[in-house]
Amino acid sequence: MRTLITRIAELTTNVALDGDPCGTLVDAAVLIEDGRLAWVGAASDAPAADETVDAGGRAMIPGFVDSHSHLAFAGDRAAEFEARMAGQKYAAGGIRSTVAATRAAGDDELRARLRGFLDEMLAQGTTTVEIKSGYGLSVADEERLVRLAAEVTPEVTFLGAHVVPTEYADRPDAYVDLVTGPMLDACAPYAKWIDVFCETGAFTVAQSRRVLEAGAARGLTPRVHASQLGPGEGVRLAVELGAASIDHGTYLTDDDIGALARSSTVLTLLPGVEFSTRQPYPDARRLIDAGVTVALACDTNPGSSFTSSMPFCIAIAVRDMGMTPAEAVWASTAGGARALRRDDVGIIAPGARADLVLLEAPTRVHLAYRPGVPLVRQVWKDGVAAG
Amino acid sequence: MRTLITRIAELTTNVALDGDPCGTLVDAAVLIEDGRLAWVGAASDAPAADETVDAGGRAMIPGFVDSHSHLAFAGDRAAEFEARMAGQKYAAGGIRSTVAATRAAGDDELRARLRGFLDEMLAQGTTTVEIKSGYGLSVADEERLVRLAAEVTPEVTFLGAHVVPTEYADRPDAYVDLVTGPMLDACAPYAKWIDVFCETGAFTVAQSRRVLEAGAARGLTPRVHASQLGPGEGVRLAVELGAASIDHGTYLTDDDIGALARSSTVLTLLPGVEFSTRQPYPDARRLIDAGVTVALACDTNPGSSFTSSMPFCIAIAVRDMGMTPAEAVWASTAGGARALRRDDVGIIAPGARADLVLLEAPTRVHLAYRPGVPLVRQVWKDGVAAG
Repeated sequence: MRTLITRIAELTTNVALDGDPCGTLVDAAVLIEDGRLAWVGAASDAPAADETVDAGGRAMIPGFVDSHSHLAFAGDRAAEFEARMAGQKYAAGGIRSTVAATRAAGDDELRARLRGFLDEMLAQGTTTVEIKSGYGLSVADEERLVRLAAEVTPEVTFLGAHVVPTEYADRPDAYVDLVTGPMLDACAPYAKWIDVFCETGAFTVAQSRRVLEAGAARGLTPRVHASQLGPGEGVRLAVELGAASIDHGTYLTDDDIGALARSSTVLTLLPGVEFSTRQPYPDARRLIDAGVTVALACDTNPGSSFTSSMPFCIAIAVRDMGMTPAEAVWASTAGGARALRRDDVGIIAPGARADLVLLEAPTRVHLAYRPGVPLVRQVWKDGVAAG
Repeated sequence: MRTLITRIAELTTNVALDGDPCGTLVDAAVLIEDGRLAWVGAASDAPAADETVDAGGRAMIPGFVDSHSHLAFAGDRAAEFEARMAGQKYAAGGIRSTVAATRAAGDDELRARLRGFLDEMLAQGTTTVEIKSGYGLSVADEERLVRLAAEVTPEVTFLGAHVVPTEYADRPDAYVDLVTGPMLDACAPYAKWIDVFCETGAFTVAQSRRVLEAGAARGLTPRVHASQLGPGEGVRLAVELGAASIDHGTYLTDDDIGALARSSTVLTLLPGVEFSTRQPYPDARRLIDAGVTVALACDTNPGSSFTSSMPFCIAIAVRDMGMTPAEAVWASTAGGARALRRDDVGIIAPGARADLVLLEAPTRVHLAYRPGVPLVRQVWKDGVAAG
């Protein structure tokens, strides 16, 4: 079955073209075959197909690649959010209340939540999602979370080192022993990535190094939560260890930026966090101009960022972080793919997965120009029309 | 036909109760009959009905009342938005490019756009929409816009005094003669409200007074665009003339706030404008604490705010304007109704229109807690389930 989608007014391919990183084509068409893209080009040159879909002069972009989420949890923290908006500061310790709710939930409840979030995200154009553990914090509970996450995505991250659980509050190094020993043994078979929250109130640089090196020794590639609540050494540790991504980066020093620009580590910005914790937004303009590769992700979690909307993150990135609409769309598609070291998503090119988003708009600029409006008209995931 | 909606975890009635302006009920139910609400109360006390809808422990709020929009136009200004995000300042003069596109469009094109926007808004929970003219700026074109708007809403505003059109650029008072004479004659039969953009670059206070008084003499009630781009005398003029609402209010003086607090004029804040023009957000906290009645609206228009999402405006109002989630929800429902002097919408009470929004969330707080996520699960307009 060959499906041609034609009359695409503006096609963001992310195959760099004449100095345009978005590789923008106008009046374009794409051909889907067996879940992959078989051809991409001008509508007037389109090959024959078994069925044709008329895009009606709308814009198309690659499916969003959301490279940072914490979807495996139970409960919510709406009351904490409300209190914070009334003036209370965000503290990482709030994670523990979600740990209690998650531990108390059955597998089927967690599965239903995961499926619910993935459906919600797909309807908003997200076709690839990374999911972290980190609300279990015991061997059995972390194993359960990576196992359930692996049922719905190949991009599973073991984040046993999310926060020190209450029962280890006075002996954090003993908890790191657990994470790097029995917990890693139980979780590694389900995970692709190892992550740590390297921040004051969570794990020190030395502890973070232990976690990441232990994971790497088991074949997991590092990614690091760092510089969310203040400046720290997490970024340089991530670069030293060849992490795929450092995530947050709200507070970066010039040294951090230089190290990132010289590395292959992606900086994943999470505008939903600054939005929902009322922190200052990072200056993405400065980062991009310095040569850092930037991705955008939602960081969907019940504490610091409960959005699952990549279009919302794009709008904030443009309004408050100095990105152009083209840069923000690139960062939420190709940038996310780089952060996950994937070359089959985040791009519209022959051979890539047919993960496509047709917008109810003539340009990708509308994602920022029409903030909050559900502009995703149709999504294809592996060539199959969703919804 | 009597339809009972039951198992509503949190019902925002906006009928003040024990110091709660939102009149919040838990575990509630509502009964719809002939497009109106026939009964509202505890689920355990619900009367018999012909059919029952299970709200499944979700939250319900009144349909949003969007009291400020400019939906009657053609074209868009995505390129202007993109340039502004790259550093160019917003100027009211950009309105003229939309005037040219609107004048060139046929009635059927404008009708299709209007219906498209109303459908888009309904899907996002908006059940009452005010629509202004103002992209015609000739007798025939303004008459056409109010006539087409009146086909889809009773809340039609004649805004011939939106900006001085190019052909009157060197004789603005002659344009005011036209607006208050033949244009008003042509438009008054279709309109309920008279509005003017009282701002440097648009109309002076003296010109604004002429427009509003002429409209009032024809039975139209004033509403005023003021203090969007800088402080001015528009607010005090609006209060003096008993306007239903002053809209924008980005730059208010202490005198403005005192005058509003002592008046029956609503202050309609439009967060989408500050978002899309990168202006500073007004301090809604200060306004509410001073006793001003605040409404929230989208100001959907192609120049300064192309959102149509009341949930987005609520999220911004909470994050950046100091409103509590409860205040923001009240302002976007009951507040909008006050701004339109309506007592049959924006409220969930016996006798009111059955305009209802069921959220995919257990509380209204989630509208701010989950920014950008389409949380509207089901909408009823005049008792009829939409979509």
